[in-house]
Amino acid sequence: MSSSFSNIGTSTKRVDARGKTTGETRFLTDLQVDNMLHAAPVYSKVPYGHLLGIDISKAEKDPQFVGFFSAVDIPGENQVGVILEDQPLLANDIVRFVGDSVGIMVAQSDEAAQRLAELVEVNIEPFKPVFTIDASRDATENFIHDSNLACKHQVNRGDIETAFLSADHIIEARFETPFQEHYYLEPQGCIARTTSEGGIYVIGSIQCPFYVQKAISKALDIPFSKIKVEQAPTGGAFGGKEDIPSEVCTRAALATLLLKQPVKMVYNRMVDVQLTSKRHPFQMHYKVGVSKAGKLLAAEVQLEENAGAYATLSSVVSYRSAMQAMGPYVIDNIAVESHSYYTNSPPTGAFRGFGSPQAAFGHERMMDVIAAELKMNPVELRFKNVVKVDTKTLTGHHLTSSVGAEETLRTAAEASGWQNQTPSNDPRWKTGYGVSLIHYGNCLGAAGWFMDGSGVKIKLHRDGSISVAFGLVEMGQGALTVVAQMTAEALGVEPSRITVLPTDTEQVPDSGPAVASRNVVMTGNAIRDAANKMLRILKEAAAELMQCDLNEIKLENGTVTNIRNSETLTFSDLTNYLYLSNRPMDVLGWWHVPELEYDAENGVGEAYFTYSYATHVAKVSIDNLTGQVKVDKIWASHDIGKAINPAGLEAQIEGGTAQGIGWALTENFKMNAGMVLSDNLTTYLLPTAMDVGEIESILVEDPEPEGPWGAKGIGEPAIIPTAAAIANAISHAVGKSVDHIPVTPEEVLELLDE
Amino acid sequence: MSSSFSNIGTSTKRVDARGKTTGETRFLTDLQVDNMLHAAPVYSKVPYGHLLGIDISKAEKDPQFVGFFSAVDIPGENQVGVILEDQPLLANDIVRFVGDSVGIMVAQSDEAAQRLAELVEVNIEPFKPVFTIDASRDATENFIHDSNLACKHQVNRGDIETAFLSADHIIEARFETPFQEHYYLEPQGCIARTTSEGGIYVIGSIQCPFYVQKAISKALDIPFSKIKVEQAPTGGAFGGKEDIPSEVCTRAALATLLLKQPVKMVYNRMVDVQLTSKRHPFQMHYKVGVSKAGKLLAAEVQLEENAGAYATLSSVVSYRSAMQAMGPYVIDNIAVESHSYYTNSPPTGAFRGFGSPQAAFGHERMMDVIAAELKMNPVELRFKNVVKVDTKTLTGHHLTSSVGAEETLRTAAEASGWQNQTPSNDPRWKTGYGVSLIHYGNCLGAAGWFMDGSGVKIKLHRDGSISVAFGLVEMGQGALTVVAQMTAEALGVEPSRITVLPTDTEQVPDSGPAVASRNVVMTGNAIRDAANKMLRILKEAAAELMQCDLNEIKLENGTVTNIRNSETLTFSDLTNYLYLSNRPMDVLGWWHVPELEYDAENGVGEAYFTYSYATHVAKVSIDNLTGQVKVDKIWASHDIGKAINPAGLEAQIEGGTAQGIGWALTENFKMNAGMVLSDNLTTYLLPTAMDVGEIESILVEDPEPEGPWGAKGIGEPAIIPTAAAIANAISHAVGKSVDHIPVTPEEVLELLDE
Repeated sequence: MSSSFSNIGTSTKRVDARGKTTGETRFLTDLQVDNMLHAAPVYSKVPYGHLLGIDISKAEKDPQFVGFFSAVDIPGENQVGVILEDQPLLANDIVRFVGDSVGIMVAQSDEAAQRLAELVEVNIEPFKPVFTIDASRDATENFIHDSNLACKHQVNRGDIETAFLSADHIIEARFETPFQEHYYLEPQGCIARTTSEGGIYVIGSIQCPFYVQKAISKALDIPFSKIKVEQAPTGGAFGGKEDIPSEVCTRAALATLLLKQPVKMVYNRMVDVQLTSKRHPFQMHYKVGVSKAGKLLAAEVQLEENAGAYATLSSVVSYRSAMQAMGPYVIDNIAVESHSYYTNSPPTGAFRGFGSPQAAFGHERMMDVIAAELKMNPVELRFKNVVKVDTKTLTGHHLTSSVGAEETLRTAAEASGWQNQTPSNDPRWKTGYGVSLIHYGNCLGAAGWFMDGSGVKIKLHRDGSISVAFGLVEMGQGALTVVAQMTAEALGVEPSRITVLPTDTEQVPDSGPAVASRNVVMTGNAIRDAANKMLRILKEAAAELMQCDLNEIKLENGTVTNIRNSETLTFSDLTNYLYLSNRPMDVLGWWHVPELEYDAENGVGEAYFTYSYATHVAKVSIDNLTGQVKVDKIWASHDIGKAINPAGLEAQIEGGTAQGIGWALTENFKMNAGMVLSDNLTTYLLPTAMDVGEIESILVEDPEPEGPWGAKGIGEPAIIPTAAAIANAISHAVGKSVDHIPVTPEEVLELLDE
Repeated sequence: MSSSFSNIGTSTKRVDARGKTTGETRFLTDLQVDNMLHAAPVYSKVPYGHLLGIDISKAEKDPQFVGFFSAVDIPGENQVGVILEDQPLLANDIVRFVGDSVGIMVAQSDEAAQRLAELVEVNIEPFKPVFTIDASRDATENFIHDSNLACKHQVNRGDIETAFLSADHIIEARFETPFQEHYYLEPQGCIARTTSEGGIYVIGSIQCPFYVQKAISKALDIPFSKIKVEQAPTGGAFGGKEDIPSEVCTRAALATLLLKQPVKMVYNRMVDVQLTSKRHPFQMHYKVGVSKAGKLLAAEVQLEENAGAYATLSSVVSYRSAMQAMGPYVIDNIAVESHSYYTNSPPTGAFRGFGSPQAAFGHERMMDVIAAELKMNPVELRFKNVVKVDTKTLTGHHLTSSVGAEETLRTAAEASGWQNQTPSNDPRWKTGYGVSLIHYGNCLGAAGWFMDGSGVKIKLHRDGSISVAFGLVEMGQGALTVVAQMTAEALGVEPSRITVLPTDTEQVPDSGPAVASRNVVMTGNAIRDAANKMLRILKEAAAELMQCDLNEIKLENGTVTNIRNSETLTFSDLTNYLYLSNRPMDVLGWWHVPELEYDAENGVGEAYFTYSYATHVAKVSIDNLTGQVKVDKIWASHDIGKAINPAGLEAQIEGGTAQGIGWALTENFKMNAGMVLSDNLTTYLLPTAMDVGEIESILVEDPEPEGPWGAKGIGEPAIIPTAAAIANAISHAVGKSVDHIPVTPEEVLELLDE
């Protein structure tokens, strides 16, 4: 692999920066179409019960009332569960959480739709609800679905019983992590309309347009070919727009199909918080056997997740948390069980990290508990056990390349001055340092291999400009910019030639979901596939035009050179010749993840095709007086294989870290009897710039041979280690073990008082 | 080639029939977008002059006034000529016809835009205008452009001087054909808006979206990649929406670019008729030498065209008329000159047939003049000279297959009872029969070979439905239906699985213009290319799934069969497996016309890659009292290689024939000093159902090896022979030679009086 690229590795201004900062970009609330109606959801205010009837008589008297639709109006299958078929599009018998939608109110204005939705009387016979993992697991009757167990995954490798017998220390601990609300800036929303072909067009704030297409097809009984789903510019998603838009868009599509008029539905913030998915709360029990020297010998890990009322993506979250449950450490004897339990809370589902931040909280707090027990430096304990090339992961995946875990640990420790920590002398402030080391399996892994392919379409124009359509999406993470960079690099042209198109389901093959930090790897490889095909055509034409051999053509920075005689052409000359010589100028690219050897029953084998690694070191100051935790600095070292856009990558790291800080310290998600209390920014405290402190990004580039230009994913690794690093730092500062988050000032004071 | 197909050759209901008959299809006037402004053109009322200034002071006082833009506001090149660079987007110095646009008025409503456009004072110093071909040709100064000759083409083959010496008869005649107005039901119109990417999106009533993209790029100085042009459902075009939408859309795009608001511009009928292109009037002089036995020995043909104020597509019209000037007859000594002259009339350009109906009027009237001179049956004269396999066309193109000319002549003559004509006994009514035989070069021919490639994109969905995007358009001709049929045939599935997408410039490669009866041939072959690629993937997957050999898989009517053991799968099972096995499910197809051997200087060689042939026989009755011509019946026999959708094909023949009847008899296009007088349906008489009479379509299938399933084009051949057949029938009835059209009742009375 060449070490010098024209575009890859160059910090590049986001191509969508101007529109998003000036307000030119039109988000869903800015969009209006002619003759448009407005919709709002009608939902259960009861956490669990039997739906007896819906009375719309008050609403339908209103002059702004247009229509109300419920389960009986669904022409297809009343089912919107993305993996398990456990979730009706509109509840028609049992309601399972406060927010379970029973209908959709359509009115002339958004205001009226919301007001009339509130006038609907939903008659429900209440059942006794279940809110905790313990109550759900232990229930013997009144199951929320056929059973209260939504799904489970496990790893069983080696022989833990024997290994525990040989351990010098056996250490146990329990940890808990809470709900987290995505709090994307832009709430859920879409506009649906019918098409001339008797189909449905939807534009929405969407992370996975192909999921929405499938959901509409199923519920409305319309073939995929008659459904076009386009992603509007999307104001944040973080997993919260992975499956939820399937509900939102399909409900709006139902209304538009029945009314033959465009229907817009945008959730207000309170509705959005009540109705949509959250990060799974985890209860974790770790039992680890180690040698005196600090070698991990055996681990038994129990992870239990609160899945909420419907499974949504729980099974994949559960899979990922199991596969990564003991972190990037060599441990040959391990038993992991990960169970997701239904409760009568809003469903929990996809959220940046996808079970990894929770598992990381478990294994990284555990490593510090072990280090404390062994009186060993936490960094040293990690060095002793970290995976390297030619070792195996906890699932027995034999690693052969791109294992930068140790290097992230080394660089983060060095940068943070780990060996020279100076405790605070200030009597009011305590200082603490915490370290956290993680791995993150890229893309969908063995559980989702069958849908782990992605495509692009590259279109050359005769003026030398280039359009690229890709199957994943820009949702704030900087995808458009890296897609432009990668296309430029692959074709040997300047990035200024490239326009990346909005994603829609017609342009490109179903590319799977825009999740799992897939974009750079999947789209990058698909771009390389397309570019290789196109370069053959380009070079053939250039050779014809320059009357030389194909191999004498070099294409770089938009200049075509005959290397024999140094004659040159511009790229635009060449594309114009392509056009005039009747050559095809569009090309499709496709890439899918290599097949994985994985034994699902035992959870053993290649859980993912490659892993990103990261170490965060947090330095915190704790105010003895108020209990406030100040994050002074986080050193965030990430092995991403190869940085495509270092500026964007650092922004991802900073964003993820900030979100991790919020989860660890300020975001206190509260419910009462299934009703979300912290449903706005005055009660749900996102960290502000003042709370985040300094973040130093460190990029470790250990290239992945299967990654485009060596790159691996960064979207999720950015958040995964943060909370554990902070909790470790607080534990260090106060000398007590922090076993759950968020660590509120009140709890810090309690810890200090103990 | 197999003789039995599942879909090809089956009369199929138009897929767009429902929407277009119920009103569900939304044409441009039905479309509104949010925040939309309205525009109207401001144009010269003087046919020729020097633009001194534009005074908008009256208009800009109006509260509904938004903006006015003229040539000075154009950021790129002020040039919209599609072939020659002779036409400004907005005139800034010389105006050359009544209708030459000098600006665009933008207002809050359509009514206001039109009203305010009329308030603008366009100050012009008038020049002496030129309206006739003779005056233009003979002018020695005050040329409309650098010269009054817009373009010319010629054929010089054999030795006409010697051949004329050997002729028994040398016969000369002159013919004239008039303007024809397209009178598409839906006038020109579009909506333009800016995009988030800083580009332009246009949706319009458009025949050639890629032309519009190019025009906007040039005038607005925006790369192709940032311009998306989508075709709205289009209410007729007939060539009139080939290049004119480039003007209309680029002007609207200019306004939207400057105002950053969507702009809609729809011409009212009077504006449309005054500003847009017409069919070229022709003056023709034929001199033909024949033997006593009726063998054509030599021809000298002069064609002169009134190009109007700008060349638009004149050079291609002129090319085609020259290449076909003496019809589908063997004639080895020929000299053709075709000259297009500028005048101060509205530009003439593309119109169904593209110079062919005019040339056909010339050569087919000439054949009857020759027959009369030789006292020979006109059909017999044609049989003696018609091209067959292994003969050459007038340009010397050696024909090797698919030459159904003779068969169309035979079948039309037989069906019409040509040999048993019975003259009318009614003293008030005279009966006449006329025959006309033509050939039509398919696709763009040697003059446009470089842009004669087209593409499709086929997308399989996992539910077994299929989307097809194609680069040409549906404009009323039935393209969507044949595209669906051909895709079904090529993939071995039922047509019900297929949705054909609206055409836009992002979906498919630049596929050239939707003209020259190209769709079936170009798109059909591109579909076959795409399907062949996809079938390989499908069969591979099926073989894997059914555990058999690739060659044992048969795909027919949506059923996948292992022919070894007759096991079956549905097509949907297979597409679902494709999806689950991570295979690409989108595929691009491309086809371009074979290279042509053609000597442009002498007009000799393969002018087109293949030809459609047709014979029309017309039976007319003539009212001695009123001069009215009643078309009793037209027998229309067409060699189309292979009928894809016989029902649609007959509809094309009927539509083309009706349009030919209008041109021959009722459509009397009148101007006064460059101002169109016949600018609405009360003065410009389209033939009604009462005027058209009976049409009997006869399909001759002489398969073209390069055509998809043997097919050739039909769109234009349908109109080409009609007028000549009618004129021949009138000549026959009245015993006088009709040398021009339209043959109005007044002129019939004159002929009868002579």
